[in-house]
Amino acid sequence: MNSFGRFFRLNIFGESHGESVGINIDGCPAGLSLTVEDFLPDLERRKGGTRKGTTPRKESDLPIFKSGVFNDKTTGAPLTILFENNNTRSADYQKQRDFPRPGHADFVAHQKFGGYEDFRGGGHFSGRLTVALVAAGVVAKKLLRLVRADKNDKTPSDNGISVQAAIIEIGGERDPEKGLQKAVEAKDSVGGIVECRVNGLPLGLGEPFFDSVESVLSHAVFAIPAIRGIEFGTGFAAAKMFGSQHNDPIIDERGATLTNHAGGIVGGISNGNALVFRIAVKPTSSTPKIQESLNWETGNVESFSVKGRHDLCIALRVPVVLEAVTAVVLTDFLLTAQKISRVL
Amino acid sequence: MNSFGRFFRLNIFGESHGESVGINIDGCPAGLSLTVEDFLPDLERRKGGTRKGTTPRKESDLPIFKSGVFNDKTTGAPLTILFENNNTRSADYQKQRDFPRPGHADFVAHQKFGGYEDFRGGGHFSGRLTVALVAAGVVAKKLLRLVRADKNDKTPSDNGISVQAAIIEIGGERDPEKGLQKAVEAKDSVGGIVECRVNGLPLGLGEPFFDSVESVLSHAVFAIPAIRGIEFGTGFAAAKMFGSQHNDPIIDERGATLTNHAGGIVGGISNGNALVFRIAVKPTSSTPKIQESLNWETGNVESFSVKGRHDLCIALRVPVVLEAVTAVVLTDFLLTAQKISRVL
Amino acid sequence: MNSFGRFFRLNIFGESHGESVGINIDGCPAGLSLTVEDFLPDLERRKGGTRKGTTPRKESDLPIFKSGVFNDKTTGAPLTILFENNNTRSADYQKQRDFPRPGHADFVAHQKFGGYEDFRGGGHFSGRLTVALVAAGVVAKKLLRLVRADKNDKTPSDNGISVQAAIIEIGGERDPEKGLQKAVEAKDSVGGIVECRVNGLPLGLGEPFFDSVESVLSHAVFAIPAIRGIEFGTGFAAAKMFGSQHNDPIIDERGATLTNHAGGIVGGISNGNALVFRIAVKPTSSTPKIQESLNWETGNVESFSVKGRHDLCIALRVPVVLEAVTAVVLTDFLLTAQKISRVL
Amino acid sequence: MNSFGRFFRLNIFGESHGESVGINIDGCPAGLSLTVEDFLPDLERRKGGTRKGTTPRKESDLPIFKSGVFNDKTTGAPLTILFENNNTRSADYQKQRDFPRPGHADFVAHQKFGGYEDFRGGGHFSGRLTVALVAAGVVAKKLLRLVRADKNDKTPSDNGISVQAAIIEIGGERDPEKGLQKAVEAKDSVGGIVECRVNGLPLGLGEPFFDSVESVLSHAVFAIPAIRGIEFGTGFAAAKMFGSQHNDPIIDERGATLTNHAGGIVGGISNGNALVFRIAVKPTSSTPKIQESLNWETGNVESFSVKGRHDLCIALRVPVVLEAVTAVVLTDFLLTAQKISRVL
Repeated sequence: MNSFGRFFRLNIFGESHGESVGINIDGCPAGLSLTVEDFLPDLERRKGGTRKGTTPRKESDLPIFKSGVFNDKTTGAPLTILFENNNTRSADYQKQRDFPRPGHADFVAHQKFGGYEDFRGGGHFSGRLTVALVAAGVVAKKLLRLVRADKNDKTPSDNGISVQAAIIEIGGERDPEKGLQKAVEAKDSVGGIVECRVNGLPLGLGEPFFDSVESVLSHAVFAIPAIRGIEFGTGFAAAKMFGSQHNDPIIDERGATLTNHAGGIVGGISNGNALVFRIAVKPTSSTPKIQESLNWETGNVESFSVKGRHDLCIALRVPVVLEAVTAVVLTDFLLTAQKISRVL
Repeated sequence: MNSFGRFFRLNIFGESHGESVGINIDGCPAGLSLTVEDFLPDLERRKGGTRKGTTPRKESDLPIFKSGVFNDKTTGAPLTILFENNNTRSADYQKQRDFPRPGHADFVAHQKFGGYEDFRGGGHFSGRLTVALVAAGVVAKKLLRLVRADKNDKTPSDNGISVQAAIIEIGGERDPEKGLQKAVEAKDSVGGIVECRVNGLPLGLGEPFFDSVESVLSHAVFAIPAIRGIEFGTGFAAAKMFGSQHNDPIIDERGATLTNHAGGIVGGISNGNALVFRIAVKPTSSTPKIQESLNWETGNVESFSVKGRHDLCIALRVPVVLEAVTAVVLTDFLLTAQKISRVL
Repeated sequence: MNSFGRFFRLNIFGESHGESVGINIDGCPAGLSLTVEDFLPDLERRKGGTRKGTTPRKESDLPIFKSGVFNDKTTGAPLTILFENNNTRSADYQKQRDFPRPGHADFVAHQKFGGYEDFRGGGHFSGRLTVALVAAGVVAKKLLRLVRADKNDKTPSDNGISVQAAIIEIGGERDPEKGLQKAVEAKDSVGGIVECRVNGLPLGLGEPFFDSVESVLSHAVFAIPAIRGIEFGTGFAAAKMFGSQHNDPIIDERGATLTNHAGGIVGGISNGNALVFRIAVKPTSSTPKIQESLNWETGNVESFSVKGRHDLCIALRVPVVLEAVTAVVLTDFLLTAQKISRVL
Repeated sequence: MNSFGRFFRLNIFGESHGESVGINIDGCPAGLSLTVEDFLPDLERRKGGTRKGTTPRKESDLPIFKSGVFNDKTTGAPLTILFENNNTRSADYQKQRDFPRPGHADFVAHQKFGGYEDFRGGGHFSGRLTVALVAAGVVAKKLLRLVRADKNDKTPSDNGISVQAAIIEIGGERDPEKGLQKAVEAKDSVGGIVECRVNGLPLGLGEPFFDSVESVLSHAVFAIPAIRGIEFGTGFAAAKMFGSQHNDPIIDERGATLTNHAGGIVGGISNGNALVFRIAVKPTSSTPKIQESLNWETGNVESFSVKGRHDLCIALRVPVVLEAVTAVVLTDFLLTAQKISRVL
């Protein structure tokens, strides 16, 4: 349940204000060069504290290899990466324990785990755990860059497979700065849309019937907190189109299409064109605004405001996390398709 | 890969123009009454041939129990349900084998399976296999109706859990008839949007981190052919909202919320309110229009038109399939949560 | 639970006196030639009715392909093989329903499935289901024969991998005929020991930590009814040996060993030498002798004798079943190790 | 592959001379009291250094909870337990890297992982990892002790389920001291037999077809290094018996049997009697004797002796490990059977 993947299998663990968060990866091929430095750029992209609209909480976020690395290379045995939690202010959360925060997992977690859950900072439900996803993504991206097109592939590339996500809308504005400014002015949190593009992906990934590329990608994507929707290619707009508009004519023998309404997937299988999809990120639940909600202590609906340090627009931090889960899913598909070897 | 579920586990098989399609269900609780009659209403809803906009192919679609039923009750052993394919016209497909149909899996299936795939009528990729999903859904729905609210649940119901899906838009029109009429007039296929609502669902379903309700539902939903997007609650609209607008205030101790922008899921866990989500269905790839695409034989892009019998708007047949996969997913969650017993 | 395997995945179903038994195989590579004739020799080996000591029940046992085969080749989609049950005499079993047969699953099945189980002839617990295992084994063996040694392998072979099992003891006698004769004279059923040898297996199969070759093989082997023990290489005799006796000296750079006490597995991984293991088969529970046991109707312990047609020595029919599960396990390991391609 | 279990799922990681070994448990019910003290007795039983015949390597072996525990109780989120490796003498191993040790995984690990494996002390293949199994076993045993018999169970117990393993033979001697003395005198390592008994186990655990109690237990057991065989109930002796001798007459309505040749399992399902099985442990591969084997450097077979600290009889340390994997397997079965709740 806290695991994902068939061959490149993640096991995630940890809590926001517990001792650590981490990821255990089973099935990582042997012989991949791996150092702390490899992780820093993506960890930096994820980090809050340096940009308008993100939380001032700062963690050093240095990955600690606890197993699976020897002489700076992966061994083929399970890879365990730990992040210590140093910069926690649990007192903030203790104070408002009487209000299960709307939009957060506080209420459902309490019911589901009988009150035994670590509630501090959202505990195991916290966005803090995405640091572990990003770490897994770093490993996966390194593997993807090693994949070379074979002779049947449409996009022969010397750079392997690249995964890139970016914000394309905040608060309904195509200009993210403008959308963020709206939130700052309204003293409210705000949502956004993130788009992910993958280039260099070989044809033939994905498995009928239940493990279509869309199925497995969406499964992983909805593990990221705050995601409310996903669409591939033209997505929801496809529902308004005619078939003759939507179909992508095939124009050469490697499967290149004139248009890419399908977003690179047909019948659940990658078709050799760019993979394109978008996700909707809801506004951060912890808005600075005063809210009305149930007070567990009194049993009444009362006003309160959320304490703690939070992002005004969590979408800002999502792209690198989205890249990570995408890279992880594709790595798993490539191993399944025998396009990544078990020893490099 | 053709399997889905942890406890209530589906194995789907078959091809459009092969001998049969079917479903094998492992983990169905023992003691569920099950007769052919139970299946007829949903199979009828799925069937084409009776409604404007759906294919004239008619199958008798009678489920044949090959294992797992004894004295009209499930035994707890694997349940295998077969549907014979009687009404196939493979010649139609043979004729256009030289054109891999745009929007269909023809091209990718050929590459992925090395030309060994059963290409007739889309083979294993065909929408024909949804008859097997619908059958699994019938079993799952019967189980859901037996689930009784416990004392902590918000929605004490004597009718168990109900799953209902309906078309809410065709070709961009809120009035499905109007949207369909547009397609008939344009002599083109058309897409649509389907919404699914689940009432009576207990709080606490779904598992952190990777098996959120959205994760597992979307995984199953994208196994349905022609789906291009999914959104929960306010979905993509959430990306344009402020946090104070989007948050659902909790108003009582069972978790009832004033609004339901979350669509019944918070932190990946059901919160006891109605589960609501929507999916985008692309226009049927087999449009009656003449198309330009690659001719495998000549290696050139040429005009052709799709033969065979097809739906003008495949979305019309999706609601019962969407209900089926939803019911299957929820059944699995309920077994995992020990809210359905293994012997009834 | 009725599934087995990661990549070459079996789903077994059916009951002894139900409509059919069968196997669904997900993950079989595309392009394997497969005809009914391929199955006949192994099905014949398994069949009772022709040999002293086996049941007079005769089934035609013709495999019916319900999916996954097209133009006599596997398609890469799930392969479903059905066997009809024609020659059933359920009345025999009905008669003695009041006695849960000692050594059989009657009692536990009744408790576990709340009385809903199909009890006729042992239902889903019957040895009849091994016909489905044998069918899966035929497919797996065909794949194994295609595996060619690579340059590092110890046993370069043009015949691929071979799996052969044989009875090495019946009723404590090394001469099976002699052991069987003892049983005939005693008018009692009798047990035996079966040994399996695999030649041509490449080095490196098996996965630490939990998926050692022994782990996965024994998992599969204990799915065969009536098995009470398994030992690899010297097995239980190893417990009486000194380390200097038991260790197999490595004598060349491909891993050949002077002796093979390890039975071809070290550290859970195949070492390139012959894989050798043995299993203990208990005497058929349905002995012709009169037994004392609980009568469910009266609640008393009473004398009764088992009706129905049964094997005097079920071990006689085990070798081909043991080969089958062994071949299935090895196929799965070879796919995992990328030594069998997904398209042939 | 380094994972085991359906519901109570272990992920094991670490290397003998790496930074740490550990276990991640997903699916542990919430609300189980858990402190470091709970682990000490079983960790002590496993530890070498205090008994004749075991390695002088001493680790403090204090479990460190990295996630999943809050206020001394499990939270329902993944439980991660780490053991630091402090007392390593890798230089010993470095010295004999030129000889792949017979009976060890050195040779196969090198081939399988392309030389990237952490070879120090056996790396991921080391018996050191059993400390992580023992830790998982402590958690499982605490859960088993909470299981109460229900009204249909044969063995109403106020103490829950108990799991106990003991050495019953060393070097062929029923008196372990005598067998060990033989080894000390011969200056050689020696094997042994360990028996495990489980009392209080409810009827109905285990799943047809592939997840029989024997299947899943043996799968887990063969993950323990040095195991060469397993037998249930009368085991290999059953192969020499007549059916009328071997069958266990049922003597009451809860399934009690007069004898227990079946070892508590019929048809793969627990029958409410004591579960009894035995395993064969080979002599420690690292014998003090001089051995002949391949020298990787020279390519010749040469004499060498194994350096490092080792057990003369590894079987001495196996009982607590065997209890651990048994407890883990039974916990998983009990969760599957809904006889352990997800919140305590």
